[in-house]
Amino acid sequence: MKHTKIKALLETSEVGEKVIVKGWVRAFRSNRFIQINDGSTINNIQAVIEYENFDEAILKKISTAAAVEVQGTLIESQGKGQSVEIAVENVQILGEANPDEVQKTVMQPKKHSLEFLREQAHLRFRTNTFGAVFRIRHGLTFAIHKFFNDKGYYNLHTPILTSSDAEGAGEMFHVTNFDLNNVPKTEDGKVDYSKDFFDKPVNLTVSGQLEAELGALALGQVYTFGPTFRAENSNTSRHLAEFWMIEPEVAFNDLKDNMDLTEEFLKYLSNYILDHYADDLQFLNDRDAQEQKAKPEKDRNPLTLIERLQFVANNDFKRITYTEAIEILRNSKPFKKKKFKYDVDWGVDLHSEHERYLVEKEFNCPVIITDYPAEIKAFYMRQNDDGKTVAAMDVLFPGIGEIVGGSQREERMDVLKKKCADFNIDEKEVWWYLDSRKFGTVPHAGFGLGFERMVMFATGMTNIRDVIPFPRTPGNADF
Amino acid sequence: MKHTKIKALLETSEVGEKVIVKGWVRAFRSNRFIQINDGSTINNIQAVIEYENFDEAILKKISTAAAVEVQGTLIESQGKGQSVEIAVENVQILGEANPDEVQKTVMQPKKHSLEFLREQAHLRFRTNTFGAVFRIRHGLTFAIHKFFNDKGYYNLHTPILTSSDAEGAGEMFHVTNFDLNNVPKTEDGKVDYSKDFFDKPVNLTVSGQLEAELGALALGQVYTFGPTFRAENSNTSRHLAEFWMIEPEVAFNDLKDNMDLTEEFLKYLSNYILDHYADDLQFLNDRDAQEQKAKPEKDRNPLTLIERLQFVANNDFKRITYTEAIEILRNSKPFKKKKFKYDVDWGVDLHSEHERYLVEKEFNCPVIITDYPAEIKAFYMRQNDDGKTVAAMDVLFPGIGEIVGGSQREERMDVLKKKCADFNIDEKEVWWYLDSRKFGTVPHAGFGLGFERMVMFATGMTNIRDVIPFPRTPGNADF
Repeated sequence: MKHTKIKALLETSEVGEKVIVKGWVRAFRSNRFIQINDGSTINNIQAVIEYENFDEAILKKISTAAAVEVQGTLIESQGKGQSVEIAVENVQILGEANPDEVQKTVMQPKKHSLEFLREQAHLRFRTNTFGAVFRIRHGLTFAIHKFFNDKGYYNLHTPILTSSDAEGAGEMFHVTNFDLNNVPKTEDGKVDYSKDFFDKPVNLTVSGQLEAELGALALGQVYTFGPTFRAENSNTSRHLAEFWMIEPEVAFNDLKDNMDLTEEFLKYLSNYILDHYADDLQFLNDRDAQEQKAKPEKDRNPLTLIERLQFVANNDFKRITYTEAIEILRNSKPFKKKKFKYDVDWGVDLHSEHERYLVEKEFNCPVIITDYPAEIKAFYMRQNDDGKTVAAMDVLFPGIGEIVGGSQREERMDVLKKKCADFNIDEKEVWWYLDSRKFGTVPHAGFGLGFERMVMFATGMTNIRDVIPFPRTPGNADF
Repeated sequence: MKHTKIKALLETSEVGEKVIVKGWVRAFRSNRFIQINDGSTINNIQAVIEYENFDEAILKKISTAAAVEVQGTLIESQGKGQSVEIAVENVQILGEANPDEVQKTVMQPKKHSLEFLREQAHLRFRTNTFGAVFRIRHGLTFAIHKFFNDKGYYNLHTPILTSSDAEGAGEMFHVTNFDLNNVPKTEDGKVDYSKDFFDKPVNLTVSGQLEAELGALALGQVYTFGPTFRAENSNTSRHLAEFWMIEPEVAFNDLKDNMDLTEEFLKYLSNYILDHYADDLQFLNDRDAQEQKAKPEKDRNPLTLIERLQFVANNDFKRITYTEAIEILRNSKPFKKKKFKYDVDWGVDLHSEHERYLVEKEFNCPVIITDYPAEIKAFYMRQNDDGKTVAAMDVLFPGIGEIVGGSQREERMDVLKKKCADFNIDEKEVWWYLDSRKFGTVPHAGFGLGFERMVMFATGMTNIRDVIPFPRTPGNADF
């Protein structure tokens, strides 16, 4: 007889059925009630034993974190909150767990701080919070692939190792085969890259966009979903050195199409989690409500986690230009009262405080800001007719900040070459990118979604290190 | 009016409909017939123009690789092979393509060698062959996520950057933030890693398995799907420095469950491509047939590409132990006639020539070999009761060789610690892995599928560099 997953058992099994369940003990109360969880759902199944019918030596080993197999009959639950429980006929200890050691780790029932759990990243999967977070992270992963597959997009695995550094999105990690104790040098004392694995300097990608454009200009609609890297010494709750990014790229799309796609995509993801992860979401919703209560009233989010997802799913995103945003900000109270730390003037980049004002005070909904000054955006963004701005867009979410950045791309060879010159990019470095404008160039557009930002939004977790299994930050690469 | 994708148009549009199509010219014949492809399918749509109704200056620009937008009415096709074509009312050139330059590149109709196209990796997406390969690569990607999602597995993003090097699967690339011209040294002349980004040596992962086990021992069933790396100087048609791997890991599974899962999985993927990518597959099937014809008769595959996929989908995999495999090989003609280059004796690893004999001569079907000698397999594989072998499995495919490697994992702490000692692995290095055996350890098993090997099998491509968008090999990291 095969064992049944607890999720399936709670959803479809019927009273009177004989079942086998395998999982980990979450609690053992009154020498009678074993709470078992197997990771398939946040819900435990309660297994009820008649103490006197079992070998005491075995019962002693039923303790928090131990692994057990129970066999029995499904009966109607006497307790509240669950419909069925197991009347146990047979119990087997698969793996013990020393209660004293368990006390010191993640798996004791008492709540640990998230910071403590980060150092126990190998065990934190076993907690309710992280179980829910990583099930929802999977749900978002699958929803992303399903969204694009259903629309006829092709997933493209763009390279992780790259000799291209034109993207300019941030500092890059170097990858080498050299023994760092003894880096080969040329006669004039420079690194002799001809002796390295790839015969030249190679870095970890910061974005697959430029390569994705090549795919889009042949396959029509593509998307990447892979790891990207930043060697930036940012020890904040919003930055990781290794994170995952989704970058769709679409031939024949302009900036408006790009905004429509982004909005449809983010609404789809929100709906998907609401529809498919109700139990995990409810748990995280309650957790978030507790967290909100602990804050000063003015910092509390008036919406619950579930309401925030519903809000994104059901409301149009506000779309404004950068120029309009600057005007709103300069007319705002905090500007007039000099409460902003950074100045607001046409041409400067918006800071987090400005974005938060627009999203959380002015509009109170997701906002798409478009048409930024060319100087503060990347070389590949399409120049608008005004000669000053480019067809860029940033999507800002309440409580998260920038979640998506994108643009229509410059498809005109002459303009693109001029931009390369303006940005000091050697045409020889990007010969392959320029080639794509030589052979049947077409308007196209795309965007990048920082995956962990989306997981934060969908789970209510406020530190990005708590939504990726093994976070990499300055000084941290354990496991 | 929105434009229609050619795939949708060929599948669902009806004669008489007004349509707009955007795409790239594949050919322009008799000043009348434009073959347009937009990447959504391998099939072109034929657009028919009445030459005399259009501006000659525009028509001159309709040439191979140019991008066009045509507007017109769908009519029944006069030619063979396609059901509909477009009677063009309006044509617009979106992007020109200089015919002389096109002659030198990938996009001219004449066939280029695959080797030439590898150097044009930025343009090869536009050929029929690579269009089909990368659509099928996407199809396999989606099928993998769907297979596991439908079964209640959770996708786990295991780390790319890791300070762990216990897996022992191969040479690793180093990742650093140092300027290699000037690596900081300590007083005794060693690399001063305390000054590097992560405060210690960090490498690119060779496998996510050890971390996936941690996930499985909490969430029950997980899988990874991400890039992995080998810094091995192998210039072969079967090796890449950067490739993608799928690694499921399942709590409570033993070796037999693991074999069953692998077989079900590979059958599902084969069926998925047969069911969803018939046009691309037919094209590659014909391409493969041509390639087979060019070979000496004895080297030809008696099955077509489609037949090979059907064969895997419909036939049981042969399961034998390593010990049985050795016996078969020692009784084989090539062994007796001393035709094998490498010796066959219990305890030695099987070489490609031996695996090919078993798969292609002896059984002529996929073969799973199990229970290898402990010495030639990794430290984490579960020790069998005979004390000599471990619960390992390798899946071998005709024409591909090893496509999957897996095992039941050693869940017993005392045995695992002894294996660490035997393999010279410092327990301190893998403290987190050992911890997972301390708190409710359970039997579990998993495997790794080299994604590109599967794409090769499903497309008939014989060089691994032709199934990944931007191949990384010694000396090659362009784009």
